[in-house]
Amino acid sequence: MKIYLAQQNYHLGNFESNTNKIIAAIHRAKSQGADLVVFSELAICGYPPRDFLYFDHFIEKCNESLDHIRLAVEGVGVLIGAPQRNTNSSGKSLFNAVYFLENQKVQQVVQKTCLPTYDVFDEDRYFEKAKDWNIVSCKGKKIAVTICEDIWNVGSHPLYTVCPMDQMIQQGPDVMINLSASPFDYTHNTDRLAILKTNVEKYQLPIFYCNAVGSQTEIVFDGQSMVMDKEANLCGQLKAFEEDEKLFILNDDGTISGEVITKKEKVASKELTPDKLDASLNIASLYQAIVLGIKDYFSKMGFAKAIIGSSGGIDSAVTLALATEALGSENVVAILMPSAFSSSHSIEDAVLLSKNLQNEYHVLPIKIIYDTFLQELQPLFKQTSFGLAEENIQSRSRGNVLMAIANKFGYILLNTSNKSELATGYGTLYGDMAGGLGVLGDCYKLQVYALANYINRNNEIIPHHIITKPPSAELRPNQKDSDSLPEYDELDQILYQYIELEKGPTEIKNLHFNPVVVDRVLKLVNTNEYKRNQFCPIIRVSPKAFGVGRRMPIVAKYLS
Amino acid sequence: MKIYLAQQNYHLGNFESNTNKIIAAIHRAKSQGADLVVFSELAICGYPPRDFLYFDHFIEKCNESLDHIRLAVEGVGVLIGAPQRNTNSSGKSLFNAVYFLENQKVQQVVQKTCLPTYDVFDEDRYFEKAKDWNIVSCKGKKIAVTICEDIWNVGSHPLYTVCPMDQMIQQGPDVMINLSASPFDYTHNTDRLAILKTNVEKYQLPIFYCNAVGSQTEIVFDGQSMVMDKEANLCGQLKAFEEDEKLFILNDDGTISGEVITKKEKVASKELTPDKLDASLNIASLYQAIVLGIKDYFSKMGFAKAIIGSSGGIDSAVTLALATEALGSENVVAILMPSAFSSSHSIEDAVLLSKNLQNEYHVLPIKIIYDTFLQELQPLFKQTSFGLAEENIQSRSRGNVLMAIANKFGYILLNTSNKSELATGYGTLYGDMAGGLGVLGDCYKLQVYALANYINRNNEIIPHHIITKPPSAELRPNQKDSDSLPEYDELDQILYQYIELEKGPTEIKNLHFNPVVVDRVLKLVNTNEYKRNQFCPIIRVSPKAFGVGRRMPIVAKYLS
Repeated sequence: MKIYLAQQNYHLGNFESNTNKIIAAIHRAKSQGADLVVFSELAICGYPPRDFLYFDHFIEKCNESLDHIRLAVEGVGVLIGAPQRNTNSSGKSLFNAVYFLENQKVQQVVQKTCLPTYDVFDEDRYFEKAKDWNIVSCKGKKIAVTICEDIWNVGSHPLYTVCPMDQMIQQGPDVMINLSASPFDYTHNTDRLAILKTNVEKYQLPIFYCNAVGSQTEIVFDGQSMVMDKEANLCGQLKAFEEDEKLFILNDDGTISGEVITKKEKVASKELTPDKLDASLNIASLYQAIVLGIKDYFSKMGFAKAIIGSSGGIDSAVTLALATEALGSENVVAILMPSAFSSSHSIEDAVLLSKNLQNEYHVLPIKIIYDTFLQELQPLFKQTSFGLAEENIQSRSRGNVLMAIANKFGYILLNTSNKSELATGYGTLYGDMAGGLGVLGDCYKLQVYALANYINRNNEIIPHHIITKPPSAELRPNQKDSDSLPEYDELDQILYQYIELEKGPTEIKNLHFNPVVVDRVLKLVNTNEYKRNQFCPIIRVSPKAFGVGRRMPIVAKYLS
Repeated sequence: MKIYLAQQNYHLGNFESNTNKIIAAIHRAKSQGADLVVFSELAICGYPPRDFLYFDHFIEKCNESLDHIRLAVEGVGVLIGAPQRNTNSSGKSLFNAVYFLENQKVQQVVQKTCLPTYDVFDEDRYFEKAKDWNIVSCKGKKIAVTICEDIWNVGSHPLYTVCPMDQMIQQGPDVMINLSASPFDYTHNTDRLAILKTNVEKYQLPIFYCNAVGSQTEIVFDGQSMVMDKEANLCGQLKAFEEDEKLFILNDDGTISGEVITKKEKVASKELTPDKLDASLNIASLYQAIVLGIKDYFSKMGFAKAIIGSSGGIDSAVTLALATEALGSENVVAILMPSAFSSSHSIEDAVLLSKNLQNEYHVLPIKIIYDTFLQELQPLFKQTSFGLAEENIQSRSRGNVLMAIANKFGYILLNTSNKSELATGYGTLYGDMAGGLGVLGDCYKLQVYALANYINRNNEIIPHHIITKPPSAELRPNQKDSDSLPEYDELDQILYQYIELEKGPTEIKNLHFNPVVVDRVLKLVNTNEYKRNQFCPIIRVSPKAFGVGRRMPIVAKYLS
């Protein structure tokens, strides 16, 4: 049996574009002699459609697309993800389903059992879980079809009380096929390989795994669809961070014709999130994920050009380099906005960076704007001394200048805040926290340095001095980040324990961090929830990003 | 049996304060001779604790509080809501539970079955549902204990496949007791009465219903705990929007000693969300809900003083009046920031308003700041003509001035944007969209007018002219809202169909709205998701508010 994996990048709710893309892949598969074409989870509408699923009209559009696709299915079977209305008398109104299409007909519908409702996932919000399980018959093969999370319910404390493969194995299937929309994070490819291996070994069946690719606002799907024979050899893997399609032959003896790229013994076991932050872990993938995140945000929103405030610091430098890679140097504009507190080298470094990247750049000092604010506020501020208000005025003046240029010329402002700053509230709302997309918002400062070194791997793009000088917001004379925050080596490790690993204060202190610093850091995180609540979407690259996957009360009094 | 309902306002995660409050109520109940004290759902930690529930340390703190409370329980029974660890080998790690305490011991634990996972609720994210059901025995009475949503699973298409009362009724209970954290919206009190009535009639049992009160960031709990006898007479109701406690006597014949305040026939049937917007529906409650929302946001965040940009328009006028009611006139400061495009009456109206409210106010024209921005941007803007960028500079200059004053003196900026503006994107990010709390963000413009009239019900607080003049953003000469938007009578009705009722474009057009206008409005809503994504929390008063209860993709292409 010839199985064709179609790893595609869908645009949420863009039914016309998605349908055309899907039908084109069916034709390509057929022309290569495929028996079965496999798409990803909820391919029809894109994943995650979120509350659009509440709209009957949206489901109707899904059904219309499915009809178009169904009529294009002749001489080949298709497995494709789409929502299905629940016609039972109780329960949520939809199933997260896979349609098996053949001979222009819906032959069978498989429903998802394990509905992820954690982190960025909300599937229990929309979907009822499957209550019965039937294998799909196609060209004489018996196929156990599962949907994404359905194969993840393993380990000693599974999250769900029912495991669909345990049900289907009783019907004697020949092969497992999983349709996924499984997002990237810097640990996830290892996890995914291990999960497939666990399933193959448990059920003694080969598995075909088709994942989505592409970025949907904050969530990056990395593709890397793959095929494993029943010996758990990895027999083929599709590209990472790109659309890709590939035909595999499943032989009657359960072997798979294809290049065996990884022997069984090389497939790693499931790794938990590492127990401390390794800033350079999978840095090349992390770089690619962010580049794809920027690229898809712009193309799916219909934008072309980005504007970035370039301070001469490392965060804006890395953001500029990533945006240039994603959008092209002709589509990225840097604005340098020195103040009286900017060091001379900041401007020189930022100019050199833009020359290296071949970006358009402009220098617009904010001194006169800042002075004007102070002068106009004088009747109220009177003899009060310089403080946070004055620092923030500078930051917001810059935000205002950037947004004005963005509005005038149709640019999108990219935000340069890193995860360490967002965690501790070390940023100004409507100032340096402004922007449409948070490029580095899921990277701790140490990871930003690792990205900078990765960007410079072949030649110096980010000037050396930007990487080596001590970080500073330059909002008052001789200011350094370390005046207000612990050193990043310590800070980032504490944050990682609290945010990624969800450890409490006692556990973190037991790791031999300074207890006073631990209490202070956790309090900073919890009391700055109100700032992050107004932050733009962040490209998610870690197992726990700020934003939709981390939901905290604002008015709480806990560790604060 | 004497049952004491304790309707309290908890502070999320503030274990010390919550525990003290709970123990004090137990003592008061005991001194009145109560047999059983009933608290609300998850009273121990406050509702909703959201992702704090993922932290072992947080659950440990809940358990410690429960221990303190348990030791205070002598000579009286207590039913209180708290998370419980799930010790089964699979499923989510917690239950949403009610502990029955008596004689300093945990006598029994009841678990929630119906876990709301829609709108602002995420309970499937944290909790495993109950798998068995046992009634609680206290002082010879058999009590069927349910938790909030557990009694809402009625109607022809119930949302959950298992109904816990159907299980417990087989054990012959004498009475139903429900512990809730059920938020306010302008339809919800009617719904709640009807649901209680439905349960009483179905199971032929009296019901005691204890609800939480108080606001948690965006969600307002309105209290209104109540008691219904088995004839479905409403025998007593606790206060709305305030803490309250009351003792009721449940007689052996199922009657309840207390004032019968509503006879059975007067309890309304469950009403669906009205099929069109009625702007004055429950306007007094809506007013109280917003006032409580402001008050609790400030008290729970530890703030005292608010600052508001006062434009002479109706939105800022109503916001000022609400803030003054919530915080006292001495704690509310109005800043008037006229530009060249402000009409003279705007300033006069705003001054008169602040005089009526007895607020401190200051006039800070933005002309010089605006001119400075234009002058400094001149090298880039060159000969381009006046447009959106220039409008937004004015709005952001105001935002910057307000935030500067707020930062300098420790005020919190209250946002004045209404739901119609937020829906259509008729606002400036970091400008008039700035602020810590969205006071009117869940009120359509027509509801803002209804609030203004309600505020003026006894005497003119909001100057008549503010209510009667045509709405304008005053960012260019002679601008009116109706230049860019349909008239609010039409706009708000279309928005209500789309947002509250989740109707699609075809259904809305069938209601005889102009189809071109419908398409334009829906497109405005969908393409402005990115703006709302960066908006502050909104006090929720409708069945569907923007914010945590409405989750939309940003990069989607749907009706846009």
